[in-house]
Amino acid sequence: MTASVNLAETTPPVTPAARSEDALTEIQSLYSRISAPHPPVQFTGAVGAKYNMGGGQPDPASLPREELADLAGELLASEEGAAALSYGDASGHLGLRETLVEKLRRWENIEVSPDELLITNGSNHGLAAVAQLFINPGDVVIVEAPTFMGGLRPFRQLRATIEMVPLDGDGLVVEDLAQTLRRLKDAGTPAKLLYTIPNFHNPAGVNLSLERRRRVSALADEYNFVILEDDAYGELRFSGEHIQSIYSLARKGRVVRAATLSKILAAGLRVGYLSAPKEMIARLSAIKLDGGHSPFTGRLANLYLEKRHDEHVAMLIDIYRRKRDALVDGIERGFASTPHLKPTYELPSGGFFLWLKLSAGVDGAKVAKEAGDRGVAYVAGPSFFADGSGAEYIRLAWSMLSEEDLRTAGDLLADAVRAATG
Amino acid sequence: MTASVNLAETTPPVTPAARSEDALTEIQSLYSRISAPHPPVQFTGAVGAKYNMGGGQPDPASLPREELADLAGELLASEEGAAALSYGDASGHLGLRETLVEKLRRWENIEVSPDELLITNGSNHGLAAVAQLFINPGDVVIVEAPTFMGGLRPFRQLRATIEMVPLDGDGLVVEDLAQTLRRLKDAGTPAKLLYTIPNFHNPAGVNLSLERRRRVSALADEYNFVILEDDAYGELRFSGEHIQSIYSLARKGRVVRAATLSKILAAGLRVGYLSAPKEMIARLSAIKLDGGHSPFTGRLANLYLEKRHDEHVAMLIDIYRRKRDALVDGIERGFASTPHLKPTYELPSGGFFLWLKLSAGVDGAKVAKEAGDRGVAYVAGPSFFADGSGAEYIRLAWSMLSEEDLRTAGDLLADAVRAATG
Repeated sequence: MTASVNLAETTPPVTPAARSEDALTEIQSLYSRISAPHPPVQFTGAVGAKYNMGGGQPDPASLPREELADLAGELLASEEGAAALSYGDASGHLGLRETLVEKLRRWENIEVSPDELLITNGSNHGLAAVAQLFINPGDVVIVEAPTFMGGLRPFRQLRATIEMVPLDGDGLVVEDLAQTLRRLKDAGTPAKLLYTIPNFHNPAGVNLSLERRRRVSALADEYNFVILEDDAYGELRFSGEHIQSIYSLARKGRVVRAATLSKILAAGLRVGYLSAPKEMIARLSAIKLDGGHSPFTGRLANLYLEKRHDEHVAMLIDIYRRKRDALVDGIERGFASTPHLKPTYELPSGGFFLWLKLSAGVDGAKVAKEAGDRGVAYVAGPSFFADGSGAEYIRLAWSMLSEEDLRTAGDLLADAVRAATG
Repeated sequence: MTASVNLAETTPPVTPAARSEDALTEIQSLYSRISAPHPPVQFTGAVGAKYNMGGGQPDPASLPREELADLAGELLASEEGAAALSYGDASGHLGLRETLVEKLRRWENIEVSPDELLITNGSNHGLAAVAQLFINPGDVVIVEAPTFMGGLRPFRQLRATIEMVPLDGDGLVVEDLAQTLRRLKDAGTPAKLLYTIPNFHNPAGVNLSLERRRRVSALADEYNFVILEDDAYGELRFSGEHIQSIYSLARKGRVVRAATLSKILAAGLRVGYLSAPKEMIARLSAIKLDGGHSPFTGRLANLYLEKRHDEHVAMLIDIYRRKRDALVDGIERGFASTPHLKPTYELPSGGFFLWLKLSAGVDGAKVAKEAGDRGVAYVAGPSFFADGSGAEYIRLAWSMLSEEDLRTAGDLLADAVRAATG
């Protein structure tokens, strides 16, 4: 039986006059509640700005292009070549997970097994999976103020209720966290998840102190919430001692830790990883529904980590420390003649970002306009606050520009501030 | 002020006696409603079975290892080398999208622009994004019976209500679809989305006829639902004429089309792509939250497609046609002595899969056991039915094995059926 016979009776032809050219208007009525677009990131300056301090894009010159080309050749010629180009393990390449186990032990003093790791398409992808694992619409998520805008997106998408807790020079202000938890519990809307960036905070550049990490863990036990610990920059420490991760301080299962190779190897390979108990990794793996991480880039990253991780990270630390110094030098020099206009900042001991608070009365929007006119691009403060506040802040990434350009950028930013207040 | 001062007052220490060793039990109470694990795929046979016809894994020998190694070297040495290793376009590499535009025009007679394409981490990843774009819990999704289990997962995860419509030799039975749509509309629960696999159906191997594609489009307009057209195997046509995609037959916006390079280049690169109107692509891109597709594998795939797509696909068609013939030959030969036990099947004109219906009275579970004992692995029917029915079906993938092994596998399967009924 062909379909046309019966359908001629059951399906009246659509009248052309009743149809618009396309069906988009009708289809839009079918969009789900979680499909709303994200608020745009407030990049200032033009696309292709000469002094682009906008994204957390790693230093292009440091990318190990030749080594990766050689390793790709070796990999594809090896007995693993076919496996690298085929469907692989849903949790990501086992060899990579084994190498990360060793790296976590050696660098971060974190003990995990390979089945406590899930390879993701970069850290953002891992954050999204964790959000899906825990958040129903209306659930309360606590984020830092400021926080990474990419961390806000999955919670907003899932229609979480977002609460903010401020930072100071030692990271998340834990007494404010405790008060917020108490208030939420009393209101019958207890927090389900805390999203925190303890090392070289994006954007604020600060570290959460060891004492506070212990307090956050204890609060998580007391109030029964999960901690999503985002550590994208932890390896890039310029000075001071490593601070133990919340993951290893807390009771097992209390923390999911998200990390990435984007800042220490190559963002373009899209390799991030989550650490969590095995039972939780299985659920996270089932949630992400992407057919598993690329066995090709997973193996390629693994070969690189095995051979070159330590020396490469050491090189990057040197590069980014110099860049931080150049940017800070540029800022200090630029504002030397007008010290009352100088923004305040904490000197970060690692990572990619300088977080400036404009001096009182300086209009962030005007500064953005003047900076853009001078070829200076950055992200304005409101992108980092869940409630859209923070117009008095700007985030500068020192990662991409040369030291010379960073010094010049500091000068130009000072010019922009003066012009905006002139 | 340090955190410890106030917290000593506000946070009583957790009593060790009240704590279990880990926090997993407490954390499990926080899981979201969408975090339930998927039903396991009913693979029969042992891991590493000699005659593995389980997954849709492409032929390992056909993978272009040397060419990709050379192209990776060229890419990383070129002026695009740094961009390939950096964060890229949220919609995927523009060059790849431009090449896909040409390929779609040349091979599939589909007209799109680059901003009507979204590169995903394989086709599954695209299916999941489309499900998120449209499905609220309880929304009705219509799927084929049987259908691809990977297509069911995102709908199940989002807690859709799933309705099944049967297939025959011309694909989805459209009069049944029309009746189902009418019934759902009358019940006040209209269908929101139809998930269909029109070419070389996975698992059923059949094609949806052109006439039925037109009818499905008309029904979508009449009942205002979106069609998710999954075309993972469409290029691998062994005989007959290309049938126009529903995407190009329907009104713009009515269809989102999911496709992949996994079957015609390398699953390990994780490159799939969605086609939809620009406005919808922007939403899909915002939904997937993975920091964008890998600029490295996106560029690598693009270089390969530009140079070798047509000749590579022609080679694959030849390989898979021979494999299909070998498997069918093995089945026919194996059952020659016991024709009453021979399963029935439609001869597929492309793709990877032979879909067998066991003869009446043959117990699928017993066959699976006997086949496993003989080193034969496949996926049992119930994984392909949303309601877990279909115990009388089995799906054999001819893609991985050699022609010789496929002939032997047909013999062994016939032995297994005889043993199961003996």
